[in-house]
Amino acid sequence: MANLAFIGLGVMGYPMAGHLRSAGHDVTVYNRTESRAKAWVDEFGGRACSTPAEAAAEQDLVMICVGNDDDLREVVCGEQGVLQGIRSGAVIIDHTTASAGVARELFQLCAEKGVGFLDAPVSGGQAGAENGQLTIMVGGDESVFDFSRPVMNCYAKMLKLMGPAGSGQLTKMVNQICIGGLVQGLAEALHFAKSAGLDGEAAMSVISKGAAQSWQLENRHKTMLAGEFEFGFAVDWMRKDLGIVLDEARRNGAQLPVTALVDQFYADVQAMGGNRWDTSSLIARLERKREE
Amino acid sequence: MANLAFIGLGVMGYPMAGHLRSAGHDVTVYNRTESRAKAWVDEFGGRACSTPAEAAAEQDLVMICVGNDDDLREVVCGEQGVLQGIRSGAVIIDHTTASAGVARELFQLCAEKGVGFLDAPVSGGQAGAENGQLTIMVGGDESVFDFSRPVMNCYAKMLKLMGPAGSGQLTKMVNQICIGGLVQGLAEALHFAKSAGLDGEAAMSVISKGAAQSWQLENRHKTMLAGEFEFGFAVDWMRKDLGIVLDEARRNGAQLPVTALVDQFYADVQAMGGNRWDTSSLIARLERKREE
Repeated sequence: MANLAFIGLGVMGYPMAGHLRSAGHDVTVYNRTESRAKAWVDEFGGRACSTPAEAAAEQDLVMICVGNDDDLREVVCGEQGVLQGIRSGAVIIDHTTASAGVARELFQLCAEKGVGFLDAPVSGGQAGAENGQLTIMVGGDESVFDFSRPVMNCYAKMLKLMGPAGSGQLTKMVNQICIGGLVQGLAEALHFAKSAGLDGEAAMSVISKGAAQSWQLENRHKTMLAGEFEFGFAVDWMRKDLGIVLDEARRNGAQLPVTALVDQFYADVQAMGGNRWDTSSLIARLERKREE
Repeated sequence: MANLAFIGLGVMGYPMAGHLRSAGHDVTVYNRTESRAKAWVDEFGGRACSTPAEAAAEQDLVMICVGNDDDLREVVCGEQGVLQGIRSGAVIIDHTTASAGVARELFQLCAEKGVGFLDAPVSGGQAGAENGQLTIMVGGDESVFDFSRPVMNCYAKMLKLMGPAGSGQLTKMVNQICIGGLVQGLAEALHFAKSAGLDGEAAMSVISKGAAQSWQLENRHKTMLAGEFEFGFAVDWMRKDLGIVLDEARRNGAQLPVTALVDQFYADVQAMGGNRWDTSSLIARLERKREE
Protein backbone atom coordinates (compact mmCIF):
# COMPACT_ATOMS: atom_id res chain seq x y z
CA MET A 1 0.00 0.00 0.00
CA ALA A 2 1.23 3.47 -0.90
CA ASN A 3 1.17 6.72 1.04
CA LEU A 4 -1.00 9.11 -0.96
CA ALA A 5 -2.28 12.66 -0.90
CA PHE A 6 -5.38 13.80 -2.75
CA ILE A 7 -5.79 17.50 -3.41
CA GLY A 8 -9.17 18.82 -4.55
CA LEU A 9 -12.27 17.05 -3.22
CA GLY A 10 -14.85 18.30 -5.72
CA VAL A 11 -17.62 16.19 -7.30
CA MET A 12 -14.89 14.13 -9.00
CA GLY A 13 -12.05 14.18 -6.44
CA TYR A 14 -14.18 13.34 -3.41
CA PRO A 15 -15.30 9.88 -4.62
CA MET A 16 -11.96 9.22 -6.37
CA ALA A 17 -10.07 9.74 -3.10
CA GLY A 18 -12.67 7.50 -1.44
CA HIS A 19 -11.83 4.64 -3.84
CA LEU A 20 -8.13 4.94 -2.92
CA ARG A 21 -9.00 4.71 0.76
CA SER A 22 -11.36 1.75 0.20
CA ALA A 23 -8.51 -0.05 -1.58
CA GLY A 24 -6.48 0.21 1.64
CA HIS A 25 -4.18 3.13 0.85
CA ASP A 26 -3.19 5.67 3.49
CA VAL A 27 -4.79 8.86 2.10
CA THR A 28 -4.12 12.43 3.27
CA VAL A 29 -6.39 15.11 1.81
CA TYR A 30 -6.42 18.84 1.16
CA ASN A 31 -9.33 20.95 -0.07
CA ARG A 32 -9.61 24.73 -0.44
CA THR A 33 -12.92 24.69 1.43
CA GLU A 34 -11.86 23.01 4.65
CA SER A 35 -15.31 21.79 5.68
CA ARG A 36 -15.39 19.46 2.67
CA ALA A 37 -12.02 17.93 3.63
CA LYS A 38 -13.35 17.42 7.15
CA ALA A 39 -16.49 15.72 5.78
CA TRP A 40 -14.29 13.39 3.71
CA VAL A 41 -12.17 12.46 6.77
CA ASP A 42 -15.35 11.87 8.78
CA GLU A 43 -16.55 9.48 6.07
CA PHE A 44 -13.32 7.70 5.12
CA GLY A 45 -10.78 8.33 7.93
CA GLY A 46 -7.25 9.51 7.12
CA ARG A 47 -6.02 13.03 7.73
CA ALA A 48 -6.85 16.51 6.41
CA CYS A 49 -4.13 19.15 6.04
CA SER A 50 -4.39 22.91 5.83
CA THR A 51 -1.98 23.38 2.88
CA PRO A 52 -1.06 21.37 -0.25
CA ALA A 53 2.62 21.45 0.88
CA GLU A 54 1.76 19.80 4.18
CA ALA A 55 -0.45 17.18 2.50
CA ALA A 56 2.31 16.31 0.00
CA ALA A 57 5.07 15.79 2.60
CA GLU A 58 6.43 12.23 2.76
CA GLN A 59 3.96 10.85 0.18
CA ASP A 60 4.73 8.41 -2.64
CA LEU A 61 2.07 9.92 -4.92
CA VAL A 62 0.10 13.14 -4.87
CA MET A 63 -3.14 13.25 -6.85
CA ILE A 64 -4.64 16.59 -7.87
CA CYS A 65 -8.12 17.32 -9.25
CA VAL A 66 -8.93 21.04 -9.30
CA GLY A 67 -10.78 23.50 -11.56
CA ASN A 68 -8.47 25.01 -14.17
CA ASP A 69 -4.91 26.01 -15.14
CA ASP A 70 -4.71 28.79 -12.54
CA ASP A 71 -5.97 26.59 -9.69
CA LEU A 72 -3.51 23.92 -10.76
CA ARG A 73 -0.52 26.28 -10.83
CA GLU A 74 -1.50 27.59 -7.40
CA VAL A 75 -1.72 24.18 -5.71
CA VAL A 76 1.53 22.97 -7.32
CA CYS A 77 3.74 26.08 -7.46
CA GLY A 78 2.15 28.42 -4.90
CA GLU A 79 3.87 29.52 -1.68
CA GLN A 80 2.26 26.62 0.13
CA GLY A 81 2.04 24.43 -2.96
CA VAL A 82 2.83 20.75 -3.42
CA LEU A 83 6.38 21.47 -4.64
CA GLN A 84 7.17 23.07 -1.25
CA GLY A 85 6.48 19.81 0.56
CA ILE A 86 6.93 16.86 -1.83
CA ARG A 87 10.07 14.72 -1.60
CA SER A 88 12.35 13.90 -4.55
CA GLY A 89 11.37 10.61 -6.18
CA ALA A 90 7.65 11.08 -5.59
CA VAL A 91 5.02 11.47 -8.34
CA ILE A 92 2.28 14.02 -9.00
CA ILE A 93 -0.76 12.76 -10.96
CA ASP A 94 -2.91 15.62 -12.20
CA HIS A 95 -6.53 14.69 -12.98
CA THR A 96 -7.59 18.28 -13.77
CA THR A 97 -8.76 18.99 -17.33
CA ALA A 98 -6.24 21.70 -18.18
CA SER A 99 -4.15 22.94 -21.10
CA ALA A 100 -1.36 20.88 -22.64
CA GLY A 101 0.88 23.91 -22.05
CA VAL A 102 0.48 23.91 -18.28
CA ALA A 103 1.02 20.13 -18.26
CA ARG A 104 4.36 20.52 -20.08
CA GLU A 105 5.34 23.46 -17.85
CA LEU A 106 4.67 21.53 -14.62
CA PHE A 107 6.30 18.37 -16.00
CA GLN A 108 9.49 20.39 -16.58
CA LEU A 109 9.35 22.10 -13.19
CA CYS A 110 8.85 18.76 -11.44
CA ALA A 111 11.64 17.10 -13.41
CA GLU A 112 14.07 19.74 -12.14
CA LYS A 113 13.20 18.67 -8.58
CA GLY A 114 13.35 14.94 -9.28
CA VAL A 115 9.54 14.64 -9.09
CA GLY A 116 7.50 12.69 -11.66
CA PHE A 117 4.48 14.39 -13.24
CA LEU A 118 1.61 12.87 -15.22
CA ASP A 119 -1.20 14.82 -16.87
CA ALA A 120 -4.12 12.44 -16.45
CA PRO A 121 -7.51 14.04 -17.21
CA VAL A 122 -10.53 11.81 -16.86
CA SER A 123 -13.85 11.28 -18.57
CA GLY A 124 -16.93 9.48 -17.33
CA GLY A 125 -18.40 12.26 -15.20
CA GLN A 126 -19.61 12.17 -11.63
CA ALA A 127 -21.17 8.72 -12.09
CA GLY A 128 -17.86 7.35 -13.41
CA ALA A 129 -16.00 8.82 -10.44
CA GLU A 130 -18.52 7.39 -7.98
CA ASN A 131 -18.50 3.92 -9.56
CA GLY A 132 -14.72 3.89 -10.07
CA GLN A 133 -15.28 3.53 -13.84
CA LEU A 134 -13.37 6.47 -15.26
CA THR A 135 -11.46 6.68 -18.51
CA ILE A 136 -8.00 8.17 -17.84
CA MET A 137 -5.82 9.57 -20.65
CA VAL A 138 -2.24 10.02 -19.55
CA GLY A 139 0.76 12.03 -20.72
CA GLY A 140 4.27 11.65 -19.27
CA ASP A 141 7.13 9.17 -18.85
CA GLU A 142 6.47 5.46 -19.22
CA SER A 143 8.32 4.46 -16.02
CA VAL A 144 6.29 6.98 -14.00
CA PHE A 145 3.10 5.72 -15.66
CA ASP A 146 3.94 2.10 -14.81
CA PHE A 147 4.66 3.05 -11.20
CA SER A 148 1.34 4.96 -10.92
CA ARG A 149 -0.91 2.58 -12.82
CA PRO A 150 -2.00 0.31 -9.93
CA VAL A 151 -3.13 3.29 -7.87
CA MET A 152 -5.10 4.88 -10.73
CA ASN A 153 -6.72 1.52 -11.38
CA CYS A 154 -8.65 2.04 -8.13
CA TYR A 155 -11.02 4.29 -10.09
CA ALA A 156 -10.33 3.50 -13.78
CA LYS A 157 -12.07 1.25 -16.26
CA MET A 158 -9.77 2.42 -19.08
CA LEU A 159 -6.26 3.77 -18.54
CA LYS A 160 -3.81 4.56 -21.32
CA LEU A 161 -0.45 6.29 -21.72
CA MET A 162 -0.88 8.49 -24.80
CA GLY A 163 2.63 9.93 -25.15
CA PRO A 164 4.87 12.58 -23.58
CA ALA A 165 3.74 15.34 -21.19
CA GLY A 166 0.59 17.08 -22.46
CA SER A 167 -0.67 14.06 -24.43
CA GLY A 168 -3.31 13.22 -21.82
CA GLN A 169 -4.75 16.72 -22.07
CA LEU A 170 -4.66 16.63 -25.89
CA THR A 171 -6.60 13.34 -25.87
CA LYS A 172 -9.24 14.80 -23.56
CA MET A 173 -9.56 17.68 -26.07
CA VAL A 174 -10.16 15.16 -28.89
CA ASN A 175 -12.97 13.70 -26.77
CA GLN A 176 -14.63 17.08 -26.22
CA ILE A 177 -14.37 17.99 -29.93
CA CYS A 178 -16.23 14.77 -30.85
CA ILE A 179 -18.95 15.53 -28.32
CA GLY A 180 -19.52 19.16 -29.41
CA GLY A 181 -20.48 18.43 -33.02
CA LEU A 182 -22.28 15.23 -32.09
CA VAL A 183 -24.58 16.81 -29.48
CA GLN A 184 -25.40 19.78 -31.73
CA GLY A 185 -26.30 17.39 -34.58
CA LEU A 186 -28.51 15.41 -32.21
CA ALA A 187 -30.14 18.62 -30.92
CA GLU A 188 -30.91 19.75 -34.48
CA ALA A 189 -32.34 16.31 -35.31
CA LEU A 190 -34.68 16.30 -32.30
CA HIS A 191 -35.67 19.92 -32.87
CA PHE A 192 -36.45 19.10 -36.52
CA ALA A 193 -38.49 16.05 -35.47
CA LYS A 194 -40.60 18.23 -33.16
CA SER A 195 -40.97 20.94 -35.83
CA ALA A 196 -42.10 18.30 -38.32
CA GLY A 197 -44.68 16.85 -35.93
CA LEU A 198 -42.90 13.50 -35.70
CA ASP A 199 -42.87 11.31 -32.59
CA GLY A 200 -39.25 12.06 -31.56
CA GLU A 201 -39.04 9.03 -29.26
CA ALA A 202 -40.16 6.66 -32.05
CA ALA A 203 -37.77 8.31 -34.52
CA MET A 204 -34.83 7.81 -32.15
CA SER A 205 -35.74 4.19 -31.57
CA VAL A 206 -35.84 3.41 -35.29
CA ILE A 207 -32.51 5.13 -36.11
CA SER A 208 -30.69 4.04 -32.95
CA LYS A 209 -29.02 0.93 -34.38
CA GLY A 210 -27.59 2.42 -37.57
CA ALA A 211 -25.11 5.01 -38.79
CA ALA A 212 -26.61 7.72 -36.54
CA GLN A 213 -26.08 5.65 -33.36
CA SER A 214 -24.19 7.26 -30.46
CA TRP A 215 -23.88 7.17 -26.66
CA GLN A 216 -25.41 10.66 -26.59
CA LEU A 217 -28.42 9.58 -28.69
CA GLU A 218 -29.05 6.56 -26.45
CA ASN A 219 -28.50 8.32 -23.12
CA ARG A 220 -29.72 11.87 -23.74
CA HIS A 221 -32.56 11.89 -26.27
CA LYS A 222 -35.35 11.38 -23.71
CA THR A 223 -34.22 14.23 -21.46
CA MET A 224 -33.56 16.45 -24.50
CA LEU A 225 -37.11 15.85 -25.78
CA ALA A 226 -38.47 16.54 -22.29
CA GLY A 227 -36.34 19.70 -21.83
CA GLU A 228 -34.66 18.34 -18.66
CA PHE A 229 -31.10 19.55 -18.12
CA GLU A 230 -30.58 19.72 -14.34
CA PHE A 231 -27.92 17.01 -14.25
CA GLY A 232 -24.76 15.83 -16.01
CA PHE A 233 -21.78 17.80 -17.32
CA ALA A 234 -22.35 21.54 -16.88
CA VAL A 235 -22.23 24.01 -19.77
CA ASP A 236 -19.77 26.20 -17.78
CA TRP A 237 -17.30 23.30 -17.63
CA MET A 238 -17.78 22.48 -21.30
CA ARG A 239 -17.03 26.10 -22.20
CA LYS A 240 -13.87 25.93 -20.10
CA ASP A 241 -12.81 22.78 -21.98
CA LEU A 242 -13.70 24.21 -25.42
CA GLY A 243 -11.72 27.34 -24.58
CA ILE A 244 -8.67 25.13 -23.99
CA VAL A 245 -9.38 23.26 -27.24
CA LEU A 246 -9.68 26.44 -29.33
CA ASP A 247 -6.51 27.93 -27.81
CA GLU A 248 -4.60 24.77 -28.62
CA ALA A 249 -6.00 24.69 -32.19
CA ARG A 250 -4.90 28.31 -32.68
CA ARG A 251 -1.38 27.15 -31.88
CA ASN A 252 -1.30 23.88 -33.84
CA GLY A 253 -3.20 25.21 -36.87
CA ALA A 254 -6.16 22.79 -36.73
CA GLN A 255 -9.42 24.09 -38.23
CA LEU A 256 -12.42 23.51 -35.97
CA PRO A 257 -15.32 25.42 -37.55
CA VAL A 258 -18.18 23.47 -35.94
CA THR A 259 -16.45 23.20 -32.56
CA ALA A 260 -15.97 26.99 -32.53
CA LEU A 261 -19.62 27.51 -33.50
CA VAL A 262 -20.89 25.11 -30.84
CA ASP A 263 -18.77 26.96 -28.26
CA GLN A 264 -20.69 30.12 -29.21
CA PHE A 265 -23.98 28.24 -28.95
CA TYR A 266 -23.00 27.29 -25.38
CA ALA A 267 -22.46 31.02 -24.75
CA ASP A 268 -26.12 31.48 -25.78
CA VAL A 269 -27.14 28.77 -23.31
CA GLN A 270 -25.21 30.57 -20.56
CA ALA A 271 -27.05 33.78 -21.50
CA MET A 272 -30.30 31.83 -21.06
CA GLY A 273 -29.23 31.04 -17.48
CA GLY A 274 -28.10 27.52 -18.34
CA ASN A 275 -24.63 27.66 -16.75
CA ARG A 276 -25.25 24.51 -14.70
CA TRP A 277 -27.33 22.67 -17.32
CA ASP A 278 -26.02 19.49 -18.95
CA THR A 279 -24.26 19.88 -22.34
CA SER A 280 -27.34 18.35 -24.02
CA SER A 281 -29.13 21.69 -23.37
CA LEU A 282 -28.05 22.85 -26.86
CA ILE A 283 -31.60 21.89 -27.90
CA ALA A 284 -33.04 24.45 -25.46
CA ARG A 285 -31.36 27.19 -27.49
CA LEU A 286 -33.05 25.97 -30.70
CA GLU A 287 -36.43 25.62 -29.03
CA ARG A 288 -36.18 29.03 -27.36
CA LYS A 289 -35.63 30.91 -30.58
CA ARG A 290 -38.82 29.44 -31.94
CA GLU A 291 -40.89 30.31 -28.87
CA GLU A 292 -39.78 33.92 -28.43
CA MET B 1 -46.42 -15.81 -51.88
CA ALA B 2 -47.25 -12.47 -53.44
CA ASN B 3 -46.91 -11.18 -56.98
CA LEU B 4 -44.43 -8.33 -56.86
CA ALA B 5 -42.78 -5.79 -59.10
CA PHE B 6 -39.52 -4.06 -58.25
CA ILE B 7 -38.69 -0.84 -60.08
CA GLY B 8 -35.16 0.55 -59.88
CA LEU B 9 -32.31 -1.95 -59.64
CA GLY B 10 -29.53 0.33 -58.38
CA VAL B 11 -26.96 -0.57 -55.71
CA MET B 12 -29.85 -0.80 -53.24
CA GLY B 13 -32.73 -2.09 -55.37
CA TYR B 14 -30.81 -4.89 -57.07
CA PRO B 15 -30.03 -6.86 -53.90
CA MET B 16 -33.38 -5.92 -52.28
CA ALA B 17 -35.28 -7.41 -55.22
CA GLY B 18 -33.00 -10.42 -54.95
CA HIS B 19 -34.07 -11.03 -51.33
CA LEU B 20 -37.73 -11.00 -52.41
CA ARG B 21 -37.01 -13.59 -55.06
CA SER B 22 -34.96 -15.73 -52.64
CA ALA B 23 -37.92 -15.69 -50.25
CA GLY B 24 -39.99 -17.34 -53.00
CA HIS B 25 -41.97 -14.39 -54.34
CA ASP B 26 -42.76 -13.99 -58.01
CA VAL B 27 -40.79 -10.83 -58.92
CA THR B 28 -41.10 -8.78 -62.09
CA VAL B 29 -38.52 -6.04 -62.58
CA TYR B 30 -38.06 -2.77 -64.43
CA ASN B 31 -34.91 -0.69 -64.69
CA ARG B 32 -34.24 2.43 -66.79
CA THR B 33 -30.99 0.90 -68.05
CA GLU B 34 -32.32 -2.34 -69.54
CA SER B 35 -29.03 -4.26 -69.39
CA ARG B 36 -29.12 -4.14 -65.60
CA ALA B 37 -32.66 -5.58 -65.52
CA LYS B 38 -31.50 -8.33 -67.85
CA ALA B 39 -28.52 -9.09 -65.56
CA TRP B 40 -30.91 -9.34 -62.60
CA VAL B 41 -33.19 -11.78 -64.45
CA ASP B 42 -30.16 -13.82 -65.49
CA GLU B 43 -29.14 -14.07 -61.83
CA PHE B 44 -32.51 -14.49 -60.12
CA GLY B 45 -35.02 -15.53 -62.78
CA GLY B 46 -38.37 -13.76 -63.06
CA ARG B 47 -39.25 -11.32 -65.81
CA ALA B 48 -38.04 -7.92 -66.97
CA CYS B 49 -40.46 -5.38 -68.48
CA SER B 50 -39.79 -2.40 -70.69
CA THR B 51 -42.06 0.07 -68.83
CA PRO B 52 -43.10 0.62 -65.18
CA ALA B 53 -46.76 0.34 -66.27
CA GLU B 54 -46.19 -3.11 -67.73
CA ALA B 55 -44.21 -4.27 -64.67
CA ALA B 56 -46.97 -3.08 -62.31
CA ALA B 57 -49.83 -4.84 -64.12
CA GLU B 58 -51.61 -7.53 -62.07
CA GLN B 59 -49.21 -7.20 -59.08
CA ASP B 60 -50.14 -7.20 -55.39
CA LEU B 61 -47.27 -4.89 -54.47
CA VAL B 62 -44.98 -2.64 -56.46
CA MET B 63 -41.68 -1.63 -54.85
CA ILE B 64 -39.81 1.42 -56.11
CA CYS B 65 -36.24 2.50 -55.36
CA VAL B 66 -35.05 5.30 -57.64
CA GLY B 67 -32.86 8.43 -57.34
CA ASN B 68 -34.92 11.48 -56.42
CA ASP B 69 -38.31 13.21 -56.45
CA ASP B 70 -38.30 13.72 -60.24
CA ASP B 71 -37.38 10.10 -60.99
CA LEU B 72 -40.07 8.98 -58.58
CA ARG B 73 -42.79 11.15 -60.15
CA GLU B 74 -41.77 9.87 -63.57
CA VAL B 75 -41.98 6.15 -62.72
CA VAL B 76 -45.28 6.60 -60.85
CA CYS B 77 -47.15 9.29 -62.81
CA GLY B 78 -45.38 9.27 -66.20
CA GLU B 79 -47.07 8.27 -69.46
CA GLN B 80 -45.84 4.73 -68.94
CA GLY B 81 -45.76 4.99 -65.18
CA VAL B 82 -46.94 2.55 -62.52
CA LEU B 83 -50.33 4.22 -62.19
CA GLN B 84 -51.05 3.39 -65.86
CA GLY B 85 -50.76 -0.33 -65.13
CA ILE B 86 -51.46 -1.04 -61.46
CA ARG B 87 -54.81 -2.49 -60.43
CA SER B 88 -57.05 -1.02 -57.73
CA GLY B 89 -56.38 -2.60 -54.34
CA ALA B 90 -52.66 -2.99 -54.92
CA VAL B 91 -49.95 -1.21 -52.93
CA ILE B 92 -46.92 0.89 -53.91
CA ILE B 93 -43.98 0.84 -51.47
CA ASP B 94 -41.51 3.60 -52.24
CA HIS B 95 -37.98 3.02 -50.87
CA THR B 96 -36.53 6.16 -52.50
CA THR B 97 -35.17 8.84 -50.15
CA ALA B 98 -37.35 11.71 -51.32
CA SER B 99 -39.21 14.72 -49.95
CA ALA B 100 -42.13 14.41 -47.57
CA GLY B 101 -44.05 16.59 -50.03
CA VAL B 102 -43.81 14.15 -52.93
CA ALA B 103 -44.73 11.31 -50.58
CA ARG B 104 -47.95 13.11 -49.56
CA GLU B 105 -48.70 14.03 -53.18
CA LEU B 106 -48.33 10.44 -54.43
CA PHE B 107 -50.24 9.05 -51.44
CA GLN B 108 -53.16 11.29 -52.39
CA LEU B 109 -52.96 10.46 -56.09
CA CYS B 110 -52.87 6.73 -55.33
CA ALA B 111 -55.76 6.99 -52.87
CA GLU B 112 -57.94 8.46 -55.64
CA LYS B 113 -57.30 5.29 -57.66
CA GLY B 114 -57.80 2.90 -54.75
CA VAL B 115 -54.09 2.14 -54.56
CA GLY B 116 -52.18 2.08 -51.25
CA PHE B 117 -48.95 4.08 -50.97
CA LEU B 118 -46.19 3.88 -48.35
CA ASP B 119 -43.13 6.13 -48.19
CA ALA B 120 -40.49 3.74 -46.87
CA PRO B 121 -36.93 5.09 -47.16
CA VAL B 122 -34.19 2.85 -45.87
CA SER B 123 -30.88 3.20 -44.09
CA GLY B 124 -28.05 0.71 -43.77
CA GLY B 125 -26.37 1.33 -47.11
CA GLN B 126 -25.29 -1.12 -49.76
CA ALA B 127 -24.09 -3.63 -47.15
CA GLY B 128 -27.47 -3.51 -45.39
CA ALA B 129 -29.26 -4.07 -48.71
CA GLU B 130 -26.99 -7.00 -49.60
CA ASN B 131 -27.32 -8.64 -46.16
CA GLY B 132 -31.06 -7.94 -45.91
CA GLN B 133 -30.44 -5.90 -42.76
CA LEU B 134 -31.98 -2.53 -43.61
CA THR B 135 -33.75 -0.12 -41.31
CA ILE B 136 -37.04 0.96 -42.92
CA MET B 137 -38.98 4.03 -41.74
CA VAL B 138 -42.51 4.06 -43.02
CA GLY B 139 -45.25 6.64 -43.51
CA GLY B 140 -48.82 5.79 -44.55
CA ASP B 141 -51.93 3.92 -43.43
CA GLU B 142 -51.68 1.25 -40.77
CA SER B 143 -53.72 -1.34 -42.69
CA VAL B 144 -51.51 -0.92 -45.76
CA PHE B 145 -48.42 -1.16 -43.55
CA ASP B 146 -49.67 -4.38 -41.93
CA PHE B 147 -50.39 -5.87 -45.36
CA SER B 148 -46.90 -4.94 -46.64
CA ARG B 149 -44.87 -5.79 -43.56
CA PRO B 150 -44.11 -9.48 -44.31
CA VAL B 151 -42.74 -8.61 -47.74
CA MET B 152 -40.51 -5.77 -46.45
CA ASN B 153 -39.23 -8.11 -43.74
CA CYS B 154 -37.37 -9.99 -46.50
CA TYR B 155 -34.70 -7.25 -46.30
CA ALA B 156 -35.35 -5.43 -43.00
CA LYS B 157 -33.81 -5.78 -39.58
CA MET B 158 -35.87 -2.85 -38.25
CA LEU B 159 -39.23 -1.80 -39.67
CA LYS B 160 -41.50 0.82 -38.14
CA LEU B 161 -44.63 2.76 -39.07
CA MET B 162 -43.86 6.34 -38.06
CA GLY B 163 -47.17 8.03 -38.85
CA PRO B 164 -49.19 9.30 -41.83
CA ALA B 165 -47.84 9.76 -45.39
CA GLY B 166 -44.49 11.58 -45.37
CA SER B 167 -43.49 10.40 -41.89
CA GLY B 168 -41.05 7.83 -43.24
CA GLN B 169 -39.25 10.51 -45.23
CA LEU B 170 -39.20 12.88 -42.23
CA THR B 171 -37.63 10.16 -40.07
CA LYS B 172 -34.93 9.53 -42.66
CA MET B 173 -34.22 13.29 -42.54
CA VAL B 174 -33.79 13.08 -38.75
CA ASN B 175 -31.24 10.31 -39.34
CA GLN B 176 -29.25 12.38 -41.83
CA ILE B 177 -29.26 15.47 -39.56
CA CYS B 178 -27.75 13.38 -36.73
CA ILE B 179 -25.05 12.06 -39.06
CA GLY B 180 -24.04 15.47 -40.50
CA GLY B 181 -23.03 17.09 -37.21
CA LEU B 182 -21.63 13.85 -35.83
CA VAL B 183 -19.29 13.16 -38.76
CA GLN B 184 -18.06 16.77 -38.87
CA GLY B 185 -17.29 16.66 -35.12
CA LEU B 186 -15.41 13.40 -35.60
CA ALA B 187 -13.51 14.85 -38.58
CA GLU B 188 -12.48 17.89 -36.52
CA ALA B 189 -11.39 15.65 -33.64
CA LEU B 190 -9.20 13.46 -35.87
CA HIS B 191 -7.80 16.49 -37.70
CA PHE B 192 -6.97 18.09 -34.33
CA ALA B 193 -5.30 14.87 -33.13
CA LYS B 194 -3.07 14.85 -36.22
CA SER B 195 -2.30 18.58 -35.88
CA ALA B 196 -1.36 18.01 -32.22
CA GLY B 197 0.96 15.11 -33.06
CA LEU B 198 -1.18 12.58 -31.19
CA ASP B 199 -1.58 8.92 -32.19
CA GLY B 200 -5.12 9.24 -33.57
CA GLU B 201 -5.77 5.50 -33.45
CA ALA B 202 -4.79 5.32 -29.76
CA ALA B 203 -6.87 8.41 -28.99
CA MET B 204 -9.96 6.83 -30.61
CA SER B 205 -9.46 3.58 -28.73
CA VAL B 206 -9.30 5.35 -25.36
CA ILE B 207 -12.39 7.54 -25.92
CA SER B 208 -14.43 4.90 -27.75
CA LYS B 209 -16.38 3.62 -24.73
CA GLY B 210 -17.50 6.94 -23.26
CA ALA B 211 -19.64 9.96 -24.06
CA ALA B 212 -17.96 10.45 -27.47
CA GLN B 213 -18.84 6.91 -28.64
CA SER B 214 -20.65 6.51 -31.96
CA TRP B 215 -21.10 4.08 -34.84
CA GLN B 216 -19.22 6.53 -37.06
CA LEU B 217 -16.27 6.70 -34.64
CA GLU B 218 -16.06 2.91 -34.43
CA ASN B 219 -16.55 2.20 -38.15
CA ARG B 220 -14.93 5.19 -39.86
CA HIS B 221 -12.00 6.50 -37.81
CA LYS B 222 -9.39 4.19 -39.37
CA THR B 223 -10.27 5.08 -42.95
CA MET B 224 -10.58 8.77 -42.04
CA LEU B 225 -7.07 8.75 -40.52
CA ALA B 226 -5.78 6.91 -43.61
CA GLY B 227 -7.56 9.27 -46.04
CA GLU B 228 -9.51 6.42 -47.69
CA PHE B 229 -12.94 7.38 -49.02
CA GLU B 230 -13.56 5.17 -52.08
CA PHE B 231 -16.49 3.31 -50.53
CA GLY B 232 -19.69 3.87 -48.57
CA PHE B 233 -22.39 6.53 -48.91
CA ALA B 234 -21.44 9.06 -51.59
CA VAL B 235 -21.19 12.81 -50.93
CA ASP B 236 -23.47 13.48 -53.94
CA TRP B 237 -26.23 11.42 -52.32
CA MET B 238 -25.71 13.07 -48.94
CA ARG B 239 -26.04 16.49 -50.56
CA LYS B 240 -29.29 15.38 -52.21
CA ASP B 241 -30.59 14.26 -48.79
CA LEU B 242 -29.43 17.43 -47.01
CA GLY B 243 -31.11 19.53 -49.72
CA ILE B 244 -34.39 17.77 -48.91
CA VAL B 245 -33.76 18.32 -45.18
CA LEU B 246 -33.04 22.05 -45.55
CA ASP B 247 -36.08 22.57 -47.82
CA GLU B 248 -38.29 20.85 -45.26
CA ALA B 249 -36.78 22.92 -42.39
CA ARG B 250 -37.48 26.11 -44.35
CA ARG B 251 -41.13 25.06 -44.38
CA ASN B 252 -41.48 23.84 -40.78
CA GLY B 253 -39.33 26.56 -39.20
CA ALA B 254 -36.65 24.33 -37.66
CA GLN B 255 -33.21 25.93 -37.21
CA LEU B 256 -30.39 23.72 -38.46
CA PRO B 257 -27.23 25.87 -38.33
CA VAL B 258 -24.68 23.05 -38.23
CA THR B 259 -26.55 20.89 -40.74
CA ALA B 260 -26.61 23.83 -43.19
CA LEU B 261 -22.89 24.45 -42.62
CA VAL B 262 -22.00 20.79 -43.11
CA ASP B 263 -23.99 20.80 -46.37
CA GLN B 264 -21.71 23.62 -47.54
CA PHE B 265 -18.66 21.65 -46.43
CA TYR B 266 -19.87 18.78 -48.62
CA ALA B 267 -20.03 21.29 -51.50
CA ASP B 268 -16.30 21.90 -50.84
CA VAL B 269 -15.67 18.15 -51.00
CA GLN B 270 -17.51 18.01 -54.34
CA ALA B 271 -15.29 20.86 -55.58
CA MET B 272 -12.28 18.74 -54.56
CA GLY B 273 -13.55 15.98 -56.86
CA GLY B 274 -15.02 13.95 -54.00
CA ASN B 275 -18.52 13.43 -55.47
CA ARG B 276 -18.32 9.65 -55.02
CA TRP B 277 -16.36 9.66 -51.75
CA ASP B 278 -17.94 8.41 -48.55
CA THR B 279 -19.52 11.04 -46.23
CA SER B 280 -16.57 10.60 -43.86
CA SER B 281 -14.46 12.55 -46.39
CA LEU B 282 -15.29 15.77 -44.49
CA ILE B 283 -11.83 15.31 -42.93
CA ALA B 284 -10.20 15.56 -46.39
CA ARG B 285 -11.49 19.13 -46.62
CA LEU B 286 -9.83 20.06 -43.30
CA GLU B 287 -6.56 18.36 -44.23
CA ARG B 288 -6.52 19.92 -47.70
CA LYS B 289 -6.70 23.47 -46.46
CA ARG B 290 -3.62 22.86 -44.37
CA GLU B 291 -1.63 21.35 -47.19
CA GLU B 292 -2.38 23.95 -49.84
